[in-house]
Amino acid sequence: MSPPTPDRSPVRALVFDVFGTVVDWRGSIIREGEALTAEKGWRVDWAALADAWRAGYQPAMQRVMQAKASGEAAWVKLDELHRGILHTLLPRFRLDDLSPAEREHLNLVWHRLDPWPDSVAGLTRLKARYPIATLSNGNVSLLVDMARHGGLPWDCVLSAELFRAYKPSPAVYRGAADLLGVAPNELLMVAAHPSDLAAAQRAGLKTAYVERPLERGPGGAPENSAGQRFDWVASDFIDLAAKLGA
Amino acid sequence: MSPPTPDRSPVRALVFDVFGTVVDWRGSIIREGEALTAEKGWRVDWAALADAWRAGYQPAMQRVMQAKASGEAAWVKLDELHRGILHTLLPRFRLDDLSPAEREHLNLVWHRLDPWPDSVAGLTRLKARYPIATLSNGNVSLLVDMARHGGLPWDCVLSAELFRAYKPSPAVYRGAADLLGVAPNELLMVAAHPSDLAAAQRAGLKTAYVERPLERGPGGAPENSAGQRFDWVASDFIDLAAKLGA
Repeated sequence: MSPPTPDRSPVRALVFDVFGTVVDWRGSIIREGEALTAEKGWRVDWAALADAWRAGYQPAMQRVMQAKASGEAAWVKLDELHRGILHTLLPRFRLDDLSPAEREHLNLVWHRLDPWPDSVAGLTRLKARYPIATLSNGNVSLLVDMARHGGLPWDCVLSAELFRAYKPSPAVYRGAADLLGVAPNELLMVAAHPSDLAAAQRAGLKTAYVERPLERGPGGAPENSAGQRFDWVASDFIDLAAKLGA
Repeated sequence: MSPPTPDRSPVRALVFDVFGTVVDWRGSIIREGEALTAEKGWRVDWAALADAWRAGYQPAMQRVMQAKASGEAAWVKLDELHRGILHTLLPRFRLDDLSPAEREHLNLVWHRLDPWPDSVAGLTRLKARYPIATLSNGNVSLLVDMARHGGLPWDCVLSAELFRAYKPSPAVYRGAADLLGVAPNELLMVAAHPSDLAAAQRAGLKTAYVERPLERGPGGAPENSAGQRFDWVASDFIDLAAKLGA
């Protein structure tokens, strides 16, 4: 067997995972949550709430995809999945006394997540050379609000919602290439999660792994990437820009 | 009969027609075309070519929608429709000697259209208060390239391509509201074309008519808007921003 031929096709556009890769979901939820309950004089473990909220995300998406495959249900936006998970968590975290308006505002904290310190500068540099787009399971309005909140300079907001399929479905990665008018192997997927990049690879995309060691907090372990190969590995978006010559 | 109750719901997002409303398609094609053929020493009536190219656009889209309704054909991107129309025009304008690469480059002139002089400043001002998105029959990659070319500061690129239906299909207007997370009557459609705005109105959107008297050239007549009522009428995007308090 000969070694695999390196793929010399150029990168013509970049798509980015968002939660954890571009924005600090955990830190943002803790900051906003603590401000909310400090005002009320309540004590809530927001780090544990953020982790539990995020932990409900994969199973909720899987239920949507299974229901869709069996023809049972229409598409469900991530906002609605987040709302359902939050609803189950409120009693456990003694947040039952939040008003309906406060609950709804809290659910939309995902629209107000803060970027990592290097995100805006790195994206701005990458954008000068390549079209840059989101490729997130977050719904379009969530991603638009987040970009306006954090000043993220996307050329285009692409979401699982446009394909009515959640990552890691190949329809999402291939659909993004089609909309951006490039071949799958001309599209570079940037993510902090090896599983997202593995699915992008299977769909024919190039991959860049960006380390986000603080995504799960100071003591949290990143997803295991052992044995996986990426086209680029970068410590942050500034480093990625340098490695891509942007 | 009592007079209709004014709709007091707030505007929560703006969507824009693009060809003619945001960018000067005719002037841009003439400028780029003249540069191309001057270099070759050819004489071509680029104004007539631009008008003929644009005139082929409505019938081509209608054929796609009819084929789709009868289950005959899949979706066709506007780039491909433009390519087909251009192909039929080349002999008439004695452009047969263009190479395949030159023809393809020329077809993508729609990705490089220049904004009207007020577009970037007006959009920037509107964006400070409202989310702003395209809502165009142009495909996503066309709109992304155009935004990068002209510095158009969209929060989000929405296209007929996402709904696999061309305007004036109501699916496009309602689909945009759904993706932006607003009710149809919270979404303001901005266009220089009364027919586009009439369709937006039928889908429940608010409307702003922006005059673009030069869209069809110094002697060209704008589309007739007699008898039609809009929620706002503005002379350009700066005037629209002022009228919307942005």
